Amino acid sequence: MALAHKRLDPALVSVGFTAKEPIAFSGQDRVPVLTDRGATICGSREIADYLEDAYPDRPSLFGGAGGRALSLFVDSWAERTLFPALVKLVLCDVLAHLDPADAEYVRRTREQQIGKSFEAMRAERERSVGPWRGCLAPLRTRLRTSPYLCGAEPAYADYSVFGFFQWARMISAFPVLDTGDPVHAWRGRLLAAFGGLADAAPADDLS
Amino acid sequence: MALAHKRLDPALVSVGFTAKEPIAFSGQDRVPVLTDRGATICGSREIADYLEDAYPDRPSLFGGAGGRALSLFVDSWAERTLFPALVKLVLCDVLAHLDPADAEYVRRTREQQIGKSFEAMRAERERSVGPWRGCLAPLRTRLRTSPYLCGAEPAYADYSVFGFFQWARMISAFPVLDTGDPVHAWRGRLLAAFGGLADAAPADDLS
Repeated sequence: MALAHKRLDPALVSVGFTAKEPIAFSGQDRVPVLTDRGATICGSREIADYLEDAYPDRPSLFGGAGGRALSLFVDSWAERTLFPALVKLVLCDVLAHLDPADAEYVRRTREQQIGKSFEAMRAERERSVGPWRGCLAPLRTRLRTSPYLCGAEPAYADYSVFGFFQWARMISAFPVLDTGDPVHAWRGRLLAAFGGLADAAPADDLS
Repeated sequence: MALAHKRLDPALVSVGFTAKEPIAFSGQDRVPVLTDRGATICGSREIADYLEDAYPDRPSLFGGAGGRALSLFVDSWAERTLFPALVKLVLCDVLAHLDPADAEYVRRTREQQIGKSFEAMRAERERSVGPWRGCLAPLRTRLRTSPYLCGAEPAYADYSVFGFFQWARMISAFPVLDTGDPVHAWRGRLLAAFGGLADAAPADDLS
């Protein structure tokens, strides 16, 4: 979405959890990786910073130095508060979306990181809904007075938070948002953005 | 601190919980209230927005439109996540700082809002420390890589969050931050900012 925001239309290459040859050249093993004008940039945030500097005449991802700085706090909030609460609701549905080799890898590594089996996460899911809804309070409050975190139009901080909702939507049909929640309406606007770019990604229909 | 950031040196008027005549002219009963150039502005955030627009040639409180928009999310996070967790640690020490009429008013209104007596809050305080430290994770993560939320120098979003720590410091000696916490170091920098403006306010020495 940051690339679309900058009116760029990249060629895409898929990378599997256990088939990472396409990004071996980058010297690390995580996605996303961007190559552009001879540069290799790894990580969503690093890519956004690169795009903002490399394409300064296109729509801004940050809206100035203050927005660039504070979007780092939004990134931290999404990673440290939103994501851990969301994982408890949807990760248990991911295995059905993976081929056997990736499923084994994801189960082993995630169960080790979280200290809990996929079955235990599923059993505790209903109890995890309350804390999840509570942790969304700052996002919900902000979106009561503005269509996007970044104001009248979306920008990087919106995409940063939305990415976690998109991940959840692709691996699980669990209803993480009530339809009356301002966060639900915001997610809908971002699904529709850029001609439905995010909406075109396959949503879960297995779980 | 927003006024100091704009290099303004206001005349201050104290307002008591039960002695609100000084702000009656504003048509509402909460502080802060700013009068400037014939305008009356109520509320910290509204005052910051006013100052940014009225004094555009002085140091910016937001660092551009993106920063102004995202600082509203930081405000929401501080109000909806940080403040409720902090209240549980320090509010039980506030009564000793108030004259009898204000103390009665504060006890009655706060116990009603929170649904819990001051004595119960004190009894549960040690159990509230863990959730409080956890809710600071996004702030802590951000401050590991930057001296301020707003980057190399503080701006409005820093003052917005810091205000809650300053409130806590003035009413309670309870150690809400470990000395090794990056948030502790950040608070220290803001206490020292503007020639120690915040540090000059009396810290609790009663509880």
